[in-house]
Amino acid sequence: MNRTRLDDRLADLDTDGYLLDASQEDANQLYLSGFTGPDPFLTLYADGEVHVLVSGLEYGRATTEAAADTVERHADYDYEYGGREERNDMYAAFVRDKGVESVSMPPRGPVGTADALRDRGIEVAVDADDRLQAVRAVKTDDEVDAIRDAQKANEAAMRAAEELIAGADVAGEGDDAEAGVLLRDGEPLTSERVTEDIEVTLLRHGCALDETIVAGGAQAADPHDRGSGPLRADEAIIVDIFPRSKASKYNADMTRTFCVGEPSETLREWYDLTERALGAALDAVEPGATGEEVHAAACEVYEEAGEPTFRTDPETETGFIHSTGHGIGLDVHESPRLASGGEELEPGHVITVEPGLYDPAVGGVRIEDLVVVTEDGYENLTDYPIEFVAE
Amino acid sequence: MNRTRLDDRLADLDTDGYLLDASQEDANQLYLSGFTGPDPFLTLYADGEVHVLVSGLEYGRATTEAAADTVERHADYDYEYGGREERNDMYAAFVRDKGVESVSMPPRGPVGTADALRDRGIEVAVDADDRLQAVRAVKTDDEVDAIRDAQKANEAAMRAAEELIAGADVAGEGDDAEAGVLLRDGEPLTSERVTEDIEVTLLRHGCALDETIVAGGAQAADPHDRGSGPLRADEAIIVDIFPRSKASKYNADMTRTFCVGEPSETLREWYDLTERALGAALDAVEPGATGEEVHAAACEVYEEAGEPTFRTDPETETGFIHSTGHGIGLDVHESPRLASGGEELEPGHVITVEPGLYDPAVGGVRIEDLVVVTEDGYENLTDYPIEFVAE
Repeated sequence: MNRTRLDDRLADLDTDGYLLDASQEDANQLYLSGFTGPDPFLTLYADGEVHVLVSGLEYGRATTEAAADTVERHADYDYEYGGREERNDMYAAFVRDKGVESVSMPPRGPVGTADALRDRGIEVAVDADDRLQAVRAVKTDDEVDAIRDAQKANEAAMRAAEELIAGADVAGEGDDAEAGVLLRDGEPLTSERVTEDIEVTLLRHGCALDETIVAGGAQAADPHDRGSGPLRADEAIIVDIFPRSKASKYNADMTRTFCVGEPSETLREWYDLTERALGAALDAVEPGATGEEVHAAACEVYEEAGEPTFRTDPETETGFIHSTGHGIGLDVHESPRLASGGEELEPGHVITVEPGLYDPAVGGVRIEDLVVVTEDGYENLTDYPIEFVAE
Repeated sequence: MNRTRLDDRLADLDTDGYLLDASQEDANQLYLSGFTGPDPFLTLYADGEVHVLVSGLEYGRATTEAAADTVERHADYDYEYGGREERNDMYAAFVRDKGVESVSMPPRGPVGTADALRDRGIEVAVDADDRLQAVRAVKTDDEVDAIRDAQKANEAAMRAAEELIAGADVAGEGDDAEAGVLLRDGEPLTSERVTEDIEVTLLRHGCALDETIVAGGAQAADPHDRGSGPLRADEAIIVDIFPRSKASKYNADMTRTFCVGEPSETLREWYDLTERALGAALDAVEPGATGEEVHAAACEVYEEAGEPTFRTDPETETGFIHSTGHGIGLDVHESPRLASGGEELEPGHVITVEPGLYDPAVGGVRIEDLVVVTEDGYENLTDYPIEFVAE
């Protein structure tokens, strides 16, 4: 964690401290405390020091693992597991014990804790800007390396997926399966089968995984459809993989779109357009450029070709119907956003760039690379070919 | 979802509606909306109807997938992605549009949204009892079946782990590895290797996974240590697996403790005590019994044998240093708690029962089964032998 940047970003807050009540599932908590607690615990940042309060069960591990100046346990406040009001009394006592009478909490902090502290005379303000997220957004070299390593696992998993898809046979009229269905060893090749190979590969490379997208045909036209059932020839198959390193907890992200057989002319045009939109967006990435400008560069490629975007039609359900990308780190989706209103890029921002086109009648195409913003542009952390028709 | 139970549980709230602002990561949200949205979205329950508000990107999928009476998208409120105040205006307009002027939110709902609605004249109360969690705690037969299926995957994974451990050789003086280290194919058998086999097995059985514990020796003495490095003969190895069905999203949970070689007399005593504590706790499980009583039954076995528990010493770091169990469902940890203050058990509660003993100088032993409370006792959803020394 970069404490100078943290102090700098929090300097204009009017409160005595910054309070988190969350488990390791919350990236702010993981970042500030350095502790992988599976249940919610408190972290208070005040006067340049990090204070952690955990249950007795977590205490031993927290004392060695947490990047904190002090680690306390519930028993230090004579709290026994169970009573809700007593727990809130303990929280207030923990905050006051650090000389803190007012705290800021991030917007997604729990309202129950905020209101309980207010009831006990502690002022609680919402840090609507989520300043910790802005601190996290700029990565150190070590953090960039952690993301780079996760992307290497991603590349291995993408290769496993592409080999499975590219090596498939296509069912003909005489086969048991419906004509056009992809086959492996005579069995229909399903989204689930490809996903399984991807996820096993990720595990073998030290990564956990949340959800993986392997979606073909009309399923691919919904950017968040995970895909299911048999894959088919001549359709676009979107493979979107976002692994998380088990050791470092940092995420990576990559998307490729594949086709076995003969894509329609429209799909070929979409693929070329999307590759151009990716290039245009990447060309726009540099310190000082805004996320909105990078998004605009991708939109313009599509709009010039007559494809709808959210800029030209906020209600469109076809065309380029999502943002161009997002920051990534301890969260899969974090600052900065490459979208309308997206903030200014800084060296150390790690972002995805992922334009795409969607229409249930045609299918979906998306290409996504992961890059880090450098002093004079960007470095691409993704080493995987961009080719539509698998061979 | 059981709407009768929902209406019954929410009846005494003084507000017009119940509001969630969360992604599918939040079990209340998944339960109430039925929608697997990866980014936070709003769900409002009012006048017996479920209303969902999602972004344009999620709209198509939400209309088919969500268990909601109405699904709306941001564009319905003329909101474009980006502006924070405009987003909060949209949230307030969405709530008011349903005739709602006051809402309850669960204690872990986001304070940013709560305060923003308050600023816009909507009353927000904290439902400190987290009533939705109490509704979720009682499972329908379909939910129990989903958990049962996940536990079957768990059994397959536990078998893979036990076979790997039981089939290990033990390094002697002449081997490359340190004497006492477990070996597979001449290589040290590590926690990481066993974990990988467990997780690959879970994936092949349709389950995702969060973190798996394979911890031996002193590592096993910390109940939340995931374990790392070579495993050794004569030490207790805790294997704790909690998979989640990818299709149903329901979790399962099981722990076994294994030993290769000759456990110490203390470890043997601990294992026998823990098996007895498990039996005593299970015997106490029936409708009308409280979680506190089930916990007491396990504690008494340990306390009579002179082992410390949190009941006899809240600051102890050795002995039985956690609760006896927890409810499980869409969350791995949910109501009811088998602990001090634990609530009354009802038919349909699915709970873990998992006593254990810990001391870094000895190691750790834990045995955990998963059961459903029935009309006259419980049904054990776990079909896996309880044997310490692997053969």
